[in-house]
Amino acid sequence: MITLDTAHRVIAAGEAKAKEIGQPMNIAVVDAGTNLQAFIRMDGAWLGSIDIAINKAFTARAFDISTRDLGQNSQPGDQFFGIHVSNHDRVMIFAGGIPLMVQGNVVGAVGVSGGSGVQDQLVAAAAAAVCK
Amino acid sequence: MITLDTAHRVIAAGEAKAKEIGQPMNIAVVDAGTNLQAFIRMDGAWLGSIDIAINKAFTARAFDISTRDLGQNSQPGDQFFGIHVSNHDRVMIFAGGIPLMVQGNVVGAVGVSGGSGVQDQLVAAAAAAVCK
Amino acid sequence: MITLDTAHRVIAAGEAKAKEIGQPMNIAVVDAGTNLQAFIRMDGAWLGSIDIAINKAFTARAFDISTRDLGQNSQPGDQFFGIHVSNHDRVMIFAGGIPLMVQGNVVGAVGVSGGSGVQDQLVAAAAAAVCK
Amino acid sequence: MITLDTAHRVIAAGEAKAKEIGQPMNIAVVDAGTNLQAFIRMDGAWLGSIDIAINKAFTARAFDISTRDLGQNSQPGDQFFGIHVSNHDRVMIFAGGIPLMVQGNVVGAVGVSGGSGVQDQLVAAAAAAVCK
Repeated sequence: MITLDTAHRVIAAGEAKAKEIGQPMNIAVVDAGTNLQAFIRMDGAWLGSIDIAINKAFTARAFDISTRDLGQNSQPGDQFFGIHVSNHDRVMIFAGGIPLMVQGNVVGAVGVSGGSGVQDQLVAAAAAAVCK
Repeated sequence: MITLDTAHRVIAAGEAKAKEIGQPMNIAVVDAGTNLQAFIRMDGAWLGSIDIAINKAFTARAFDISTRDLGQNSQPGDQFFGIHVSNHDRVMIFAGGIPLMVQGNVVGAVGVSGGSGVQDQLVAAAAAAVCK
Repeated sequence: MITLDTAHRVIAAGEAKAKEIGQPMNIAVVDAGTNLQAFIRMDGAWLGSIDIAINKAFTARAFDISTRDLGQNSQPGDQFFGIHVSNHDRVMIFAGGIPLMVQGNVVGAVGVSGGSGVQDQLVAAAAAAVCK
Repeated sequence: MITLDTAHRVIAAGEAKAKEIGQPMNIAVVDAGTNLQAFIRMDGAWLGSIDIAINKAFTARAFDISTRDLGQNSQPGDQFFGIHVSNHDRVMIFAGGIPLMVQGNVVGAVGVSGGSGVQDQLVAAAAAAVCK
């Protein structure tokens, strides 16, 4: 089970990485039930990324997979093409959402949005690394 | 016409196949009117697949076709490309939804989600085989 | 944590009560994260109650209260009037949704729809009594 | 203009009050554009209140009024009755949302949900008092 304290530490790690690379981000953490636990929008981060960060976190827990990996199976012709319109359009299929693991179990997920796919993934990975 | 008893038997057959291949699944059955008749989420199955399983069943009855076959006609450039955003985003265009047939008539459909496209289709086929 | 086995027993108890009073019902069970675990529509039950049963279960867990009690605080002039349009219109404020308790903790909820408020509540109570 | 740092201080003040009264809360802060700046769900707070806290903050800034005061003008027969279904059902008309003021200007809003109307209002007031 994730706690608010854990969520704060996950977000802080992501925020530190975002500052390091100089790109303000939206960072969201959901619990094992996909429900939002905590969220921040760093000053100057894209407004359209609020929804995306939250939904990347949703997606990563909903399917227990990073949104980057899910996206690689959801392109035209792939086995999950079309999945992005399910779940009331909350499924994000590009990089930035990563499950949070504790002792091999998924306890929630972090979602990051505000930069390029590479940047979002980098920040999400730094955030997710807090859990282990 | 489908009954709850039939829906239970369809789901039980799918559940047995899911256990056999070791992949927990969401399994939904809709009636001839596309309305949900019964649903189960096996322990550990993906949360994001609740919606998908229900919508695969909807799709298979809504168009009287397996979602796998529909998907093969709905890729970019194909005759039905774009259909996945119709019907309030309930149209699923990847494997796992199969119509339920009784004496040549479609009486409903089963939708399965929780694994790869191949796994979903395998479980759905086992479930649909109950009707004939 | 709720399991599919528990959900089946909750639903079976509700179904038995529904048969006893001669009113076919839709019965849904959600887990602690408000996610659907299992659902049945008894033969002849109202189609419009599929959504309501699922959303009553959602509501009872979302606020850890029976939908009947929530409704008594959500009438015009009451402290929660207007709550029914929150959560994307999934909040039901009439009888039939009851939290599932195990050793004092809410582990999910059951939602029943298909009859009068008194009937829905009666069936939901019988279903919820399985947990304790 | 609100900053993430201000949002953190607003939330911290609300969280402290919530702990003081022993009621776990969801607390959201939006900026002058009604866009979410930060959010926390305290451990054990209602899941259905995530959406409500965010929307109370939205409402308080959208109309530059506390949701309690708006609610007193939105009951059946009142001048704003029906407003709760506008803005895609994001308008909350019960206590817990308060505009954030700096030198007489509204710079955003805080939304609190997780207890009775009196409790939500108390926590929101403590949070909003950070700005002045």
